Amino acid sequence: MNMIPNVLAERYASPAISSIWSAEGRIVLEREFWIAVMKAQKDLGLDIPQEAIDAYEAVKDQVNLEAIMERERITRHDVKARIEEFCDLAGHQHIHKGMTSRDLTENVEQLQVYRSLLVIRDKTIATLAQMKARSAQWRDLVITGRTHNVAAQPTTFGKRIAMNGEELLGALGMLNHLIDTYPVRGLKGAVGTQMDQLSLFDGDADKALQLEAKVCSHLGIPEVYTNVGQVYPRSLDMRTVSILADIASGPSSLCRTLRLMAGHETASEGFAKGQTGSSAMPHKMNSRSCERVNGFHVILKGHVTMAGGLAGDQWNEGDVSCSVVRRLMLPDAFFALDGLFETFLTVLGQMDAYPAVIEAENNHYLPFLMTTTIMMEAVKAGVGREAAHKVIKEHAVATVNDLRTGEIRENDLLNRLAGDDRIPLSYEQLYALLEEGRENTGTARSQVDHFGAEVGKLESAYPDAAKYTPGAIL
Amino acid sequence: MNMIPNVLAERYASPAISSIWSAEGRIVLEREFWIAVMKAQKDLGLDIPQEAIDAYEAVKDQVNLEAIMERERITRHDVKARIEEFCDLAGHQHIHKGMTSRDLTENVEQLQVYRSLLVIRDKTIATLAQMKARSAQWRDLVITGRTHNVAAQPTTFGKRIAMNGEELLGALGMLNHLIDTYPVRGLKGAVGTQMDQLSLFDGDADKALQLEAKVCSHLGIPEVYTNVGQVYPRSLDMRTVSILADIASGPSSLCRTLRLMAGHETASEGFAKGQTGSSAMPHKMNSRSCERVNGFHVILKGHVTMAGGLAGDQWNEGDVSCSVVRRLMLPDAFFALDGLFETFLTVLGQMDAYPAVIEAENNHYLPFLMTTTIMMEAVKAGVGREAAHKVIKEHAVATVNDLRTGEIRENDLLNRLAGDDRIPLSYEQLYALLEEGRENTGTARSQVDHFGAEVGKLESAYPDAAKYTPGAIL
Amino acid sequence: MNMIPNVLAERYASPAISSIWSAEGRIVLEREFWIAVMKAQKDLGLDIPQEAIDAYEAVKDQVNLEAIMERERITRHDVKARIEEFCDLAGHQHIHKGMTSRDLTENVEQLQVYRSLLVIRDKTIATLAQMKARSAQWRDLVITGRTHNVAAQPTTFGKRIAMNGEELLGALGMLNHLIDTYPVRGLKGAVGTQMDQLSLFDGDADKALQLEAKVCSHLGIPEVYTNVGQVYPRSLDMRTVSILADIASGPSSLCRTLRLMAGHETASEGFAKGQTGSSAMPHKMNSRSCERVNGFHVILKGHVTMAGGLAGDQWNEGDVSCSVVRRLMLPDAFFALDGLFETFLTVLGQMDAYPAVIEAENNHYLPFLMTTTIMMEAVKAGVGREAAHKVIKEHAVATVNDLRTGEIRENDLLNRLAGDDRIPLSYEQLYALLEEGRENTGTARSQVDHFGAEVGKLESAYPDAAKYTPGAIL
Amino acid sequence: MNMIPNVLAERYASPAISSIWSAEGRIVLEREFWIAVMKAQKDLGLDIPQEAIDAYEAVKDQVNLEAIMERERITRHDVKARIEEFCDLAGHQHIHKGMTSRDLTENVEQLQVYRSLLVIRDKTIATLAQMKARSAQWRDLVITGRTHNVAAQPTTFGKRIAMNGEELLGALGMLNHLIDTYPVRGLKGAVGTQMDQLSLFDGDADKALQLEAKVCSHLGIPEVYTNVGQVYPRSLDMRTVSILADIASGPSSLCRTLRLMAGHETASEGFAKGQTGSSAMPHKMNSRSCERVNGFHVILKGHVTMAGGLAGDQWNEGDVSCSVVRRLMLPDAFFALDGLFETFLTVLGQMDAYPAVIEAENNHYLPFLMTTTIMMEAVKAGVGREAAHKVIKEHAVATVNDLRTGEIRENDLLNRLAGDDRIPLSYEQLYALLEEGRENTGTARSQVDHFGAEVGKLESAYPDAAKYTPGAIL
Repeated sequence: MNMIPNVLAERYASPAISSIWSAEGRIVLEREFWIAVMKAQKDLGLDIPQEAIDAYEAVKDQVNLEAIMERERITRHDVKARIEEFCDLAGHQHIHKGMTSRDLTENVEQLQVYRSLLVIRDKTIATLAQMKARSAQWRDLVITGRTHNVAAQPTTFGKRIAMNGEELLGALGMLNHLIDTYPVRGLKGAVGTQMDQLSLFDGDADKALQLEAKVCSHLGIPEVYTNVGQVYPRSLDMRTVSILADIASGPSSLCRTLRLMAGHETASEGFAKGQTGSSAMPHKMNSRSCERVNGFHVILKGHVTMAGGLAGDQWNEGDVSCSVVRRLMLPDAFFALDGLFETFLTVLGQMDAYPAVIEAENNHYLPFLMTTTIMMEAVKAGVGREAAHKVIKEHAVATVNDLRTGEIRENDLLNRLAGDDRIPLSYEQLYALLEEGRENTGTARSQVDHFGAEVGKLESAYPDAAKYTPGAIL
Repeated sequence: MNMIPNVLAERYASPAISSIWSAEGRIVLEREFWIAVMKAQKDLGLDIPQEAIDAYEAVKDQVNLEAIMERERITRHDVKARIEEFCDLAGHQHIHKGMTSRDLTENVEQLQVYRSLLVIRDKTIATLAQMKARSAQWRDLVITGRTHNVAAQPTTFGKRIAMNGEELLGALGMLNHLIDTYPVRGLKGAVGTQMDQLSLFDGDADKALQLEAKVCSHLGIPEVYTNVGQVYPRSLDMRTVSILADIASGPSSLCRTLRLMAGHETASEGFAKGQTGSSAMPHKMNSRSCERVNGFHVILKGHVTMAGGLAGDQWNEGDVSCSVVRRLMLPDAFFALDGLFETFLTVLGQMDAYPAVIEAENNHYLPFLMTTTIMMEAVKAGVGREAAHKVIKEHAVATVNDLRTGEIRENDLLNRLAGDDRIPLSYEQLYALLEEGRENTGTARSQVDHFGAEVGKLESAYPDAAKYTPGAIL
Repeated sequence: MNMIPNVLAERYASPAISSIWSAEGRIVLEREFWIAVMKAQKDLGLDIPQEAIDAYEAVKDQVNLEAIMERERITRHDVKARIEEFCDLAGHQHIHKGMTSRDLTENVEQLQVYRSLLVIRDKTIATLAQMKARSAQWRDLVITGRTHNVAAQPTTFGKRIAMNGEELLGALGMLNHLIDTYPVRGLKGAVGTQMDQLSLFDGDADKALQLEAKVCSHLGIPEVYTNVGQVYPRSLDMRTVSILADIASGPSSLCRTLRLMAGHETASEGFAKGQTGSSAMPHKMNSRSCERVNGFHVILKGHVTMAGGLAGDQWNEGDVSCSVVRRLMLPDAFFALDGLFETFLTVLGQMDAYPAVIEAENNHYLPFLMTTTIMMEAVKAGVGREAAHKVIKEHAVATVNDLRTGEIRENDLLNRLAGDDRIPLSYEQLYALLEEGRENTGTARSQVDHFGAEVGKLESAYPDAAKYTPGAIL
Repeated sequence: MNMIPNVLAERYASPAISSIWSAEGRIVLEREFWIAVMKAQKDLGLDIPQEAIDAYEAVKDQVNLEAIMERERITRHDVKARIEEFCDLAGHQHIHKGMTSRDLTENVEQLQVYRSLLVIRDKTIATLAQMKARSAQWRDLVITGRTHNVAAQPTTFGKRIAMNGEELLGALGMLNHLIDTYPVRGLKGAVGTQMDQLSLFDGDADKALQLEAKVCSHLGIPEVYTNVGQVYPRSLDMRTVSILADIASGPSSLCRTLRLMAGHETASEGFAKGQTGSSAMPHKMNSRSCERVNGFHVILKGHVTMAGGLAGDQWNEGDVSCSVVRRLMLPDAFFALDGLFETFLTVLGQMDAYPAVIEAENNHYLPFLMTTTIMMEAVKAGVGREAAHKVIKEHAVATVNDLRTGEIRENDLLNRLAGDDRIPLSYEQLYALLEEGRENTGTARSQVDHFGAEVGKLESAYPDAAKYTPGAIL
């Protein structure tokens, strides 16, 4: 039987992420970690010959997965299998001194997580830059704002995008906090007491701490735990995965809204060059990428549940009941979010708005949306507030009903109000209110500008990240 | 970069499941489905030349995934890519007539699910057979039953296993109900009205229904939906995945308990031949397989959350926001449960109980566990109930405290009671009660027999399934 | 501080469910259970005076929650508190003989669950009856079927409702299976061996089983576990709650679709008498009840995660780590689903369709939806298939674009095709195809009839349930 | 029927939290918010008479829930009901000017969340202070560290506590970040454009922003959103609830471990004064509070799923599909975590360790735990590494087996090694190694000190919080 690929890595994630989590890449990371430990141990006085280190260095990229798997089938111990393979390749027995399996795997897996977080930060910034551009482009395009999916008040398409953009900015703040405080487990030994490292150095605790510091500096992760057991607390994974789901939320909401807008033909996610719609229905522009973004979010929330199943469930100094879960969940969560970004960046690059349809919708709803303003004007003209409300409601509801029953095809509320003596406003006056109201989007435009300015700071701070464009998506 | 494999399929699931979900296998299932549709359409009068059908048949196993992926990169439409590939291979254009993409994919994916459910049923039965054997083996091995993880009353190890076995039996009932009622979507067209199939047959609804019936008969799934949209309701996937998590629960609880017992050295999951414990600590028999079983359960509950994210979220006649989720979740949920069974069957095959340690534990706790009985005898001997309770509690608590503070090393509660005039029972009488109580496991043994009889019926009904033994696990 | 009410019970659930789960109601259920046990014990020969039983009977409805809570604050043992209270009220000490706390609480809680399941079945049937009525009412109302939220093919509104109705029927099948197979824990003692019941009857296992049978017959639950520990397996709760979420899915999808339709003004959930829309926007008919239904579904899926957190996590013979979870989750899950039904039944009772708007939408999209048919006719008239497809696609895409840019306001695809020599069909011919296609909803109508027939069987079997109408909702 | 209470608030949460979420309390918060808006509007020039403000102030604490509910039953609009009630009480109509419902409810609910977060921070600090005290108390108490629930290496009980304490410290960092960056929605109007506030001030955007700033200052929440719709993004709720689950993880893991230790009688959660164990088994000290802590964690993870069901699901400018979910989830999540802290603080206050049992366990395992050291000494004494490993493993495994089969009752590994010529170490030498190893807990003690120092900083910064002691728990 042929190998079954990881569907997220194969179809959706970009190499920036998947290379971090490939089996070969991980083996190399581990070997580099072992070498870093050896070098540090040698520096601190352990008797490790330089030629052994050189020999390991020389073979570290010779990764034969099948050979390793073969060893694991016998030992039923994955780390032991990888130690033996590396030592046999190098012809030495100097790695893994004073280390327990988790001294290797925890740190290397955290390195994978940490590097993935940096990739995700870059993609988040690229996405915000695109959202800034789109919200600026449509900053002044007035649309019918909807609540409960029903016309409510005018807003602008730019603000609608900035709204979900600001949501993403908030999640970026969490991500940055996580990156800044992400602690690596370090070299802590079988139960977290560093006993075996101390033994290596004849009980010299200072050397054990120096060794750990050197190794963490190799990893490039600034923080390190002090009190851990065999493993770092799995709530850190839950924290990580929750933030990934948090990041996915703004894009997911915008995609949800684009799917709704596509239903009204006020906007669409666009078509790639050469893309075919439904063969039977060539006109059909399906929001398949937006739907996919929503799908990725569902996946991530499943990963949050998995991570939650591990958090707070540590027995004593730890065990490996988390192992199979983390093997699956950690890469998949990053693949899913990376795939989401690739897809969403494509949507942002190809999406389109249809001003003519938007304007028709505005015209259809505008008289309803202006009823508050009309009422206030009527009050100014001397009608009692309650009386005005009653009359306007009466006509508004009747107009809605006539539109729905087909009595009328266009919204004629203004005519009705102009023709009712209880409202002392002429058609011309009412029409003027309408035209004025059409552009009344409050602080929408300045809100868009505020969002743009915030993202602008990020673009300055991370210019390369901001310029990223997605690969071709399926 | 090298391909990233599906970690569940690669490391844990057996070929019985993974072959159903391989990319190649799926392509062949699709092609067989198309051919079945063509044949049925021809039977019902459509003008499809036999040589075309023969040509498709001839090439159906020629699966070139890369070529198909290349086509998809252009069309961004996976089904279209696969149609073109198959037609080009066959040199004809007769497949997919009157079909929409989902007429293909829904049915084929449901076939994958259905066949996987049958595999899972077989594995469940194999597992129950092993649990029966183990519960029979240790039917009479008295252990200290624990509640709140603290000694409570005697039970037998066999009953403990039968308890989780009966839990699994209940889940099997749900699985059987699902298999018996699992409905396939059928050929329903783009929005579920079968319009295009009707058009093919000039509006002859009877022929459209006959076509669907013939095709479902090809699939071998007894039930078919009547009212669906583009897709079958995703609550069916939630139902499926929930039942998989349900099935995992009994094994998961037994593994949790085995991990606890390993901590007391009353039982262990055993060692495979050649397996190494921790290299640093050769005596250590870690419950790594039991821990893994618990890990699989966590994964499955994450899949339940994913499935829940799709259920009840259908817009109109449906869309593909579920697509990426189902691509991931459906195979992975089956891989996880299959991997759980492979692991758990291995545990059942290798596990061991340690009667000497068990007996020592029983002796340690027995005087405490017998306090109720002692009190009843004291009452019979004329002491007031409350008075007896007070005295016994006083000594019991003191004994516990002395054991915990190291005042005593062995439980001497019987001596204390024998020496207290307020309890008119001699040491000999008390000891006799103890010896009697040691074996007092109530209906535990007959409960085990009842479980064995229930499983026996399954073994008779599914003899091959019951005999299954797991492959080698990592 | 005032008491904080359970928000689901207070605002949404009906008395049929909330009375089962009230604190007072539960106390009474427990007392009835104790009395049933006493009577059975007396029948089987235990020395329990009739006057004691009478005394307990006489006071069983005297429930003083505060007094019980006061006792619990001292003993920190809820069952002990309730035993003492009941005994003090009755002036006897005969309840709870040979019983452990869980012999009481497990069975009573399962009785609450079981009775709630029966209520839910009735509500499901009432809902199906209403869905049948609505799908019959709109069986022939042709609407524009949508996939990806975009116009796809005609269907009928009745079929759309029947589609979600059939989904609910499937979930009802699961519920019925659960009800038919729901096993109660029974009187199993502290670790499931029935030891204390056996002691009461001097080791007579037969009497212990007879006692259990009598007590289960009091409960009215047909099945009983054989092998359990202190508790019944919590996967049964997961099974129960998963099925509740399953049941919620069909209603949730229909509500999602109604929210979409409200956005197009093709349908609405209607207004209750006296209900106010937004005060500022009197025309606004918000789908607030449909939104609430979707909200209940989200809640239920959270309960599924809670239930999943308990399943497969039993330690040895059990403990109370599940206690606080079940206290919350079990009633709340039933309250949520009951509230969902009350809300959804209200929606079904008040919803409305707007045929004029629907027809306008149909007219707008029909030329696009008919392109397949037009192509087939063109082929019949001698044009090559690929050529026809190319021409039609060209015009369809141009028409879409012109509509979106405002070049045209009405769909003029027919004119374009009629004016193109490459398509040998006149405007009259094309128009005739369109009119024919307008009603071409395939097997939609017969599908609706099939759904109605299935529900009809339920209405006959459960006539009272089918007639249920919801209470007033907030 | 009697009211059904919120079980979390009634049984577990403390008044500090439940008072924030009581129905009455919320009404008062809303009224204070309305008054704050009125005052600010008056300051900014709106014509609101001081006597109206005074009238509202005078009646703001007159909360009649039933009267409000009665109004809601008619209007089906909760905010409208509360407006009417407050206005009728005050005899004025000046509140809610230019406001939409969400301008009220979002801000008030966020205030409830924010204040609850502050309470949770205090409880977290109190908990850390207790964990510091306990880890200091048992800083030097050597215990057998366990991985896979099996003896691994010595550690100290203090470090075990500090390990979970440091986990909690990490979660506190997240909480602090959330508190520092928590943004309130502000007065944004129906679709987020502040249109109605602008209208009130005749289009003066500056006044609208000033009004918002004044109102936010009333709330005391430092950050405010710029771009939102009708609602703030629900990913903020997911973020909040995820962090609550994160906080629960360290306590949950420690409780899990205490439950395990209770099984070995090395520690227990202790007993409250007057507390009764099982009546039948007076010696039994059940870890019911620890189990409850684990239960609360399960609940919180269910709330995370609920919150995840809302995040990324915003349609356009928002709707109320989140309403029923948030009504339930937000207070319940805080009640659950608060209940967890009350319970866990009680555990920390009453827990006990049993040095005699701990020492017996250490003695039992120490020879095994020292095998690495023995091997290293044997190597120093001239034996080949592989040879030494082989011999030691042979004896270690044999000793384990003999203990399990009852051949021996005490670990005699040292005798076996001393008696084997292949290992050139005398019994005295081996025993000396053992005694040395007994105290070899590496950096455990200094790790505890490090934890204490970190918590000490918090105690200085939040002295009142640190001193908090829990109320009596059930």
